[in-house]
Amino acid sequence: MTRFRLTVEFDGRPFMGWQRQNHGPSVQQAIEEAVTRITGEEAGVHAAGRTDAGVHAEAMAAHVDIAKPIPPFRLMEALNAHLRPNPIAILACEAVADDWHARFSCTGRRYSYRIINRRAPLALDAGRAWHVAAPLDADAMHAAAQRLVGHHDFTTFRSVHCQSESPVKTLDRLNVSRYGDEIEVEAAARSFLHHQVRSMVGCLMLVGRGKWSADDLSTALAARDRNELGLNAPPDGLFFVEASYPG
Amino acid sequence: MTRFRLTVEFDGRPFMGWQRQNHGPSVQQAIEEAVTRITGEEAGVHAAGRTDAGVHAEAMAAHVDIAKPIPPFRLMEALNAHLRPNPIAILACEAVADDWHARFSCTGRRYSYRIINRRAPLALDAGRAWHVAAPLDADAMHAAAQRLVGHHDFTTFRSVHCQSESPVKTLDRLNVSRYGDEIEVEAAARSFLHHQVRSMVGCLMLVGRGKWSADDLSTALAARDRNELGLNAPPDGLFFVEASYPG
Repeated sequence: MTRFRLTVEFDGRPFMGWQRQNHGPSVQQAIEEAVTRITGEEAGVHAAGRTDAGVHAEAMAAHVDIAKPIPPFRLMEALNAHLRPNPIAILACEAVADDWHARFSCTGRRYSYRIINRRAPLALDAGRAWHVAAPLDADAMHAAAQRLVGHHDFTTFRSVHCQSESPVKTLDRLNVSRYGDEIEVEAAARSFLHHQVRSMVGCLMLVGRGKWSADDLSTALAARDRNELGLNAPPDGLFFVEASYPG
Repeated sequence: MTRFRLTVEFDGRPFMGWQRQNHGPSVQQAIEEAVTRITGEEAGVHAAGRTDAGVHAEAMAAHVDIAKPIPPFRLMEALNAHLRPNPIAILACEAVADDWHARFSCTGRRYSYRIINRRAPLALDAGRAWHVAAPLDADAMHAAAQRLVGHHDFTTFRSVHCQSESPVKTLDRLNVSRYGDEIEVEAAARSFLHHQVRSMVGCLMLVGRGKWSADDLSTALAARDRNELGLNAPPDGLFFVEASYPG
């Protein structure tokens, strides 16, 4: 048995999310089925993060155990061949220690959220960014975002379906930058609650529009109450960009 | 009658190209039909460049004449509403002089061609970049590209269907830059021949792979013979990015 680490890029639009579901296609199922076609083995593929329907990944980390001897490069090539025409690509594949775990060994996760802030609808970036037509003040968003950085109870920014044991997380970084019409929100933490990034971005958008002040954001955080959430941003703009591991 | 200048973004994948065709949808037809639905008028929409099937635009310039009085902002909003669900967005709309012509007044055109140079297929950028799996030397490509800059007979790099009166053009800029796995080719000229950018990029790819030298590229140019073309790059990676006008 060899454990392989996979680096996975995917376009989230056709999927119900990362995790296998009964009611529609998932990234996990597509990769597991490709492994089975290659090896004849039942396979369980585990990821650093379980992304929602419509959320994308530039470089999701995952692992899978395979009994059949196969060199990592050949496995990568075979997976990419069998994954067609799904918009899923295995960017890298390497053999790792048996106790390396994509989810439990992960010590840092980084997401990027793209907003396109212009009057016109999206043609080139439809489904790959959040279209906000009203003008946003990205500097105000960045300043307010710093209220969320640090060790907090993020209950307000947590889906009611979140399975995490605790709502307390440490947010390492929440940076908002504008590049022309595009606003990028970068979020980094050891781990995130379900919907946390989208919920934080939704509230930052209210700050950018001038509907919320930074104090309103602090009040919502302190309330530790999902009903105090201003807005949950759509999945379209969210990209899982990096998983970090020790060493 | 008012002449309106339109700035148009589109994803070229569902279209036969800019120009109206009998055998499939075009960007021109979609915009003309939207104008007709808004104004009740027959409309002719003219663009700075006639892109091929599958070629994209970040900011194509176009114009249309409309008799019915309508403010530019309202026209833009109405066009965007009527263009749904086509991946076409009107980014800007302004009234211009009656003798302003998107094609004939244009004094500069700029294209960007995106190559993704990695082993794995494209998931996030499928249809929006050229996937080249073999390693490319972008520095060698840039150096060779300078052989094409200047005033030349570009017959080798011209489609047999090209309707331009002369194959002689002045290429102002052809820059090749690498950003990680991505290679961008930027091409600027007053005007281009049909397929010129894709043909130049195809041959530069051969240089990047080491199959052609810069001298081979010069020989192909000097031959003034379409049969000496090394390769025509696919439309996927080509974006019309800017049209320039006097003033």
